[in-house]
Amino acid sequence: MQFASLDDIRAFCRDLPGGERRFADIAARRQQNLTKPPGSLGRLEELAIWLAQWQGRESPRLDRVTIAVFAGNHGVAARGVSAYPPAVTAQMVANFAGGGAAINQIAKAAAAELRVVPIELERPTRDFTEAPAMNPDEFLEAVDAGYRTVPDDCDLLAVGEMGIANTTAAAMLCTALLGGGAARWAGRGTGVDDDGMARKRAAIETALHFHRAILDDPLAVAAALGGRELAAITGAVLAARRHHIPVLLDGFVATSAVLPLARLDPRALDHCRAGHVSAEAGHRDLLRELKLDPLLDLNMRLGEAAGAGVAILLARAALACHIGMATFSEAGVSGAGD
Amino acid sequence: MQFASLDDIRAFCRDLPGGERRFADIAARRQQNLTKPPGSLGRLEELAIWLAQWQGRESPRLDRVTIAVFAGNHGVAARGVSAYPPAVTAQMVANFAGGGAAINQIAKAAAAELRVVPIELERPTRDFTEAPAMNPDEFLEAVDAGYRTVPDDCDLLAVGEMGIANTTAAAMLCTALLGGGAARWAGRGTGVDDDGMARKRAAIETALHFHRAILDDPLAVAAALGGRELAAITGAVLAARRHHIPVLLDGFVATSAVLPLARLDPRALDHCRAGHVSAEAGHRDLLRELKLDPLLDLNMRLGEAAGAGVAILLARAALACHIGMATFSEAGVSGAGD
Repeated sequence: MQFASLDDIRAFCRDLPGGERRFADIAARRQQNLTKPPGSLGRLEELAIWLAQWQGRESPRLDRVTIAVFAGNHGVAARGVSAYPPAVTAQMVANFAGGGAAINQIAKAAAAELRVVPIELERPTRDFTEAPAMNPDEFLEAVDAGYRTVPDDCDLLAVGEMGIANTTAAAMLCTALLGGGAARWAGRGTGVDDDGMARKRAAIETALHFHRAILDDPLAVAAALGGRELAAITGAVLAARRHHIPVLLDGFVATSAVLPLARLDPRALDHCRAGHVSAEAGHRDLLRELKLDPLLDLNMRLGEAAGAGVAILLARAALACHIGMATFSEAGVSGAGD
Repeated sequence: MQFASLDDIRAFCRDLPGGERRFADIAARRQQNLTKPPGSLGRLEELAIWLAQWQGRESPRLDRVTIAVFAGNHGVAARGVSAYPPAVTAQMVANFAGGGAAINQIAKAAAAELRVVPIELERPTRDFTEAPAMNPDEFLEAVDAGYRTVPDDCDLLAVGEMGIANTTAAAMLCTALLGGGAARWAGRGTGVDDDGMARKRAAIETALHFHRAILDDPLAVAAALGGRELAAITGAVLAARRHHIPVLLDGFVATSAVLPLARLDPRALDHCRAGHVSAEAGHRDLLRELKLDPLLDLNMRLGEAAGAGVAILLARAALACHIGMATFSEAGVSGAGD
């Protein structure tokens, strides 16, 4: 295992591999010379510079793009917090395998390989209203499953998840690490009704009290109040940092999964961009807390990396412009004030 | 010519071809049955339904997607309203032909054909601070050039423009048709400095006074205060309406070009979506006036259909999900509350 203890993760976050500023500078200079008013491609320029910085390449590329979708089941589902039964997690994993889900179509459109990793679906986490969801070893195993999913040589990683009841786990992590109570973070998820919402908020408040002794330890919180697929996302984002791979985060659940890393060191997410802001209630607020400015705002709330997958298309457009455009001198176009 | 007089355009807008609601209904029902919580693909669902409605097809398609970029020159450029010299319009048209501009790369990424149509670049419109930019015949010729550019059989059209000083013409149309004075609508364009901004606002206010007698006639305003490439966009959008082709509008200039149609009848833009909201100052406000909700907000301000071109990627993702996803029954996935 890459991380044999929570302390190993803490150590990694104390000595994070950096992006390479000089490649960002080279990319930014190229952008200035392309046949357009400086800055006029907006966030497409930022994306190209970001890819160069985190890939550590003079000329960034997107030859191998991976979408990782992790799936897990949650003991807290027994509290009636979701509109869907827990069996849907495995059913959707089968749907991913059969090519019938949204992310299958989006992966094809984005020319990305899709890796779906179910993590012990037959063994849900414990109901965190009455016990730690995972003990540290279980948490580390799930982190490792995520870490191992990331190909060393991929150029861009998009991460997402599937797991009935996991917006409850996500809201739980946010409540535990950012405060404001369940009302600030609990949303409708896949479309739970008012009674379900009340149960969701109650579960979070109950668990907050039950686990009050560990709330100042981000990784202990991630283990006791998160989920296996969230832990796997944490691991995948750490692997990406190790291997110089920029990351597109998906929605509320995927973003909450990396919140513990940001609490260890805010720079831990410097290689990440928010693919989109979802319609799930807490996501916009969470992104603000993390100083992540989402690329897309399409009112999506599906999870399964769908929003991050669509954002890959923006990265491809950004790279196409960065690599393919002529410079002012190549094209014989006059600059400003000429 | 499709429109031999301004009255012909007025007649067309009094009897607009409608979208086909029944195909929208079929598409919406299909979206409800796909393996995802209802509505969870957000604006991607809307896009699929919109394509079905305006193509008038049970199963929408994007086999032929066209990006039309119209170019024109402006007499008002002599007022020092742009950071770039007028020669850049023709230079950029040559850059489009050579494949070196942003839109060339974006068109490739979006698998769209690019049609670049320069309109009498050697014959700029007259300076509208002291004369009508075009007489009605000149305006109708430019409308016709746009109309003829649209292939009858294309499945989606994106429209954009290139023309030094044309954000001044765009702000002029907005000021004339929506009020609020030059300060409300004049922006930095390609990056004009404070002195240039002052000249831009002054030119607009001067022209507003000069043309005060025609301000209640949207098409007279389009001719006297617009530009050839703006008129061509108007024509292309009318052609798309005739041929059941949905349209993605680009930025401030492209949107201002269809404002006169909306003033004739707000339903004239029902087949259009705003590909993005640009960083040009007046665009967000103009979209609000037109009740168009932009698909992207990427801080772009390039024109040349770049933002609309990127939005084609969203339409492709939307269609891929709509066509390729399994239904709940096909995939054996339980629905909500099962």
